[in-house]
Amino acid sequence: MLRKNRLFTPGPTPLLPAAQAAMASFSAHHRTADFRALFTRVLADLKEFIGTQNDVIVTVSSGTGMMEASVSNLTSPGDKVLVLSAGTFGERWIGITKAFKCNVDVLSAPYGRTFSFDEIRARLTPDVRTVFVQATESSTGTRHDIEGIAKIVRGNSDDTLLIVDAITGLGTTHLDVDGWGIDVIIGGSQKALMIPPGLAYCAVSDRAWQRMETTSSPRFYFDLRKERKAAAKGEAAYTPATSLYAALGAALDFIRRAGNGNLSDGRAMLVDNAELCAEMTRVAVRALGLKLFSASSGAALTAIHSPQGIDSGQIIKEFRESFDAVIANGQGEMKGRIFRIAHIGYYDYLDTIGILGALEHVLARCTATPVEYGAAVRAAQEVYARVSSGKRQLIEA
Amino acid sequence: MLRKNRLFTPGPTPLLPAAQAAMASFSAHHRTADFRALFTRVLADLKEFIGTQNDVIVTVSSGTGMMEASVSNLTSPGDKVLVLSAGTFGERWIGITKAFKCNVDVLSAPYGRTFSFDEIRARLTPDVRTVFVQATESSTGTRHDIEGIAKIVRGNSDDTLLIVDAITGLGTTHLDVDGWGIDVIIGGSQKALMIPPGLAYCAVSDRAWQRMETTSSPRFYFDLRKERKAAAKGEAAYTPATSLYAALGAALDFIRRAGNGNLSDGRAMLVDNAELCAEMTRVAVRALGLKLFSASSGAALTAIHSPQGIDSGQIIKEFRESFDAVIANGQGEMKGRIFRIAHIGYYDYLDTIGILGALEHVLARCTATPVEYGAAVRAAQEVYARVSSGKRQLIEA
Repeated sequence: MLRKNRLFTPGPTPLLPAAQAAMASFSAHHRTADFRALFTRVLADLKEFIGTQNDVIVTVSSGTGMMEASVSNLTSPGDKVLVLSAGTFGERWIGITKAFKCNVDVLSAPYGRTFSFDEIRARLTPDVRTVFVQATESSTGTRHDIEGIAKIVRGNSDDTLLIVDAITGLGTTHLDVDGWGIDVIIGGSQKALMIPPGLAYCAVSDRAWQRMETTSSPRFYFDLRKERKAAAKGEAAYTPATSLYAALGAALDFIRRAGNGNLSDGRAMLVDNAELCAEMTRVAVRALGLKLFSASSGAALTAIHSPQGIDSGQIIKEFRESFDAVIANGQGEMKGRIFRIAHIGYYDYLDTIGILGALEHVLARCTATPVEYGAAVRAAQEVYARVSSGKRQLIEA
Repeated sequence: MLRKNRLFTPGPTPLLPAAQAAMASFSAHHRTADFRALFTRVLADLKEFIGTQNDVIVTVSSGTGMMEASVSNLTSPGDKVLVLSAGTFGERWIGITKAFKCNVDVLSAPYGRTFSFDEIRARLTPDVRTVFVQATESSTGTRHDIEGIAKIVRGNSDDTLLIVDAITGLGTTHLDVDGWGIDVIIGGSQKALMIPPGLAYCAVSDRAWQRMETTSSPRFYFDLRKERKAAAKGEAAYTPATSLYAALGAALDFIRRAGNGNLSDGRAMLVDNAELCAEMTRVAVRALGLKLFSASSGAALTAIHSPQGIDSGQIIKEFRESFDAVIANGQGEMKGRIFRIAHIGYYDYLDTIGILGALEHVLARCTATPVEYGAAVRAAQEVYARVSSGKRQLIEA
C-alpha cells in the first residue's frame, strides 16, 4: 500500500501547508524594509501567541540553544540554581548549568512522574537565584504543574528567577506567563508552531532583563540584550533564517484565523486540539491493554509502555516499515521500554484515528496477543463523539 | 478540532508533495532547451505509464477537452458512432458527438450497471465507424469491462475505432491498451497522476492517426496532428502549462520509484493501492448497513446509497463541516441519492481508515439509527491485515 511520510514525533511536527508555501517563495534580504516589517510583525505576534507583555527574542538555533541562552545570560559562575529534573530534558538543564559553572542543586522526580511541592519548598532556600524546569517533559510525556511551581518560586524571593522550557508546552498546555510570574519562557519553531526546526524564541521579564545587567557568564551569539537592542530597530543581531521567519509569519496568521482574529484564542484552540488528540490516544491505548508511562500525561505527546517482552524499537520499526509513520522511542534509559506518539501542532481527526488504527496492526504483528481490530479506534471515536457533540470547533487550514 | 482540507473526490485528488514543490519552483520559458527536455521526457514517461507504444499527446485542457479532441479529430459530420453510456460521463460522449454532428447510436445501461456484451454485438453493425466508452464511469463508480468490449469492437471491423475515456480508469484498473487494440485512451492530470487539473493526455493508435487524414470535423486548438508534429521537435503547438509539466515530471518520477525503476510496475502498484482502499471502503460501508450503488464497483471510487430518507447532500455537508473532508454528491439525477468516496491516486492507510472513522460520526449525526463506533473501521482493518500479511508493498512518498 502507498505510504505517506507521517510524523508523529514531538518535534519536528507536521508542517502547515501555508507555512511551507510562504517559506518556499520568500527571498527578501534581511537588511531591507520588507524583512524588517515581517520581523517586527512576527515578534509582536509571538508575544500575543505566548500571551505575555514581556519582550520576545528569537534566535536562529534549536530549542537547546535558547536553553543555553537563558543560562548564559542569567547566571554567573558559582550562582546557586535549582534544577527540577524528571527526564532527559531536565537532565539537559543540569548539563547546561554545570557547563556554565553554576552551583547546581537538583531535585529529581522519577521518570514519568512530577515533583512534590513540599520537596520544592524544602529546596528553595532564599539563596537560590534561578529555578529551571520543563512545562512538559517531552521524554516521558509528563506535564509539570507550572502554576503551582511558579507560586512557590514567587513566594520564595523576588530575586529568584523562574525559567521554563515550554518547547513542547507552548500550544499544548495553558500557561499564564505574566500572571504566574514566569521570567523566561522558551519555545521552538518545530513544535506547536507547525514549521521546521531552526528558530527558538523566548519571552523575558523585566526582572530577568535587570538580572542580565549583573551576570558574568560568557555569551556572544546568544547575547539576549544585543538581540533586544537590534529588535527595537526591526532587525536581528546576526543573519536571521529568513525563510523560517516567512513560515512563522504564515503560521501565526493561521493561528490567528483559527482564533477568529485573536492569537491567544488560536493558541487555546491548539491546546484544546492537542488535548482531544491526547485523550483519544490515551483511551485507545488502554483499550488495547497497554499502559501509559506517565502518571500525569500532558497533551504534547503520550508515552506508552512497550508490551511485556517487546523492545519498543520493534514497535517503532513496524510503524515505519508498514506505514512510513515515525513515532518516537524512549530516550536515555527509557529507550526500548517506551514509545511516544505526539499530538502537538498540526493533527486532525483523520490523523489521530489513522495512527490508532495503525497501532492495532503494529501490535498484532509485534506481539503474540490477539488484537481485536477496531477496539482502540472505537474508544477514541467515543471520546471524539462526546467532546464534539457540544460544540463544533472550526479550525481550518 | 483542527481540520485539514481533505479531498476524497474522484478528481482533483490529493497532491503529491514532490509535484507541488516542482510546480512551485519551475519557471523556465517553454521555447527553451530546458523545457524541451522536460516535455520530451514527460511524453516518453507517459507512454510507459499508460503502457503503450502509441504516440502520446498532451493538451492544456480538462479531460473533457481531450474527449472533444478525440471526436473532432476522428469523426466527420454524419459518421455513424456508437456511444456506450451508463452515467453522466457516457452522456458527455453523447453531447460531444452530437455537437460534432455525428449520427449517434446510444446503448445505455442503467446508472450503476454496465453493458451486456450481446447488446453491444447487436448494435455494432459494420458501418459503425467509432465506439466511445468510459473505462470507469465516475458518476456511478462502475467499472466497464474494456477488455471484453475491445474484443467485440476488434472483431467487428478493422475500421471501427475504439475510444476509451480512462480519465479515472488509468491508474485504478488494468488496461492493456495495445494488446486489446484501444485506439485512443484518454487521461487527466488531476487523477491518478496526483497533480492539479489543467493537463489531459491521450495515446493514439496508427489506425486512428490514419483516420485523421480523412476526417472533416472542424478543429484547431485540439488538432492532434499539429501537436504530434510539434512534439517531434520537443514542443507543444500552443503555450503549454509549464508548471503543470514540471509537476507531471515529478509525479512520473515518483511512480517510477514506486515501481523500482519501472513506470508500468509503478502504475500497477497504484492500481493495487486503489483496489485495497476500495475494498476496505466497500466492506466498511456494508458493515454500517449501507448499500453500494454500483453492481460492479471499480477502484477509482465507491458510490454509496444515501440511507433511507436522507438527502446525500446532508452527508456531504456533515463531512465538510465536521472534518473539512470533501466527498462527492451524485451527479444529474443521482444527486441527493448517493455519495461518492474516491480512492484514485495519493491515499494511504491512514487516509482510508480516517475517512471511514469519520463516516461513522457522519452517519451517527445524520441518521436516527445508532452507529456502533469502530464497526466500519474494523471491517476495513481486517481486509488490510489479510492483504498486507503476505507482502509488504513499499511505495514511499
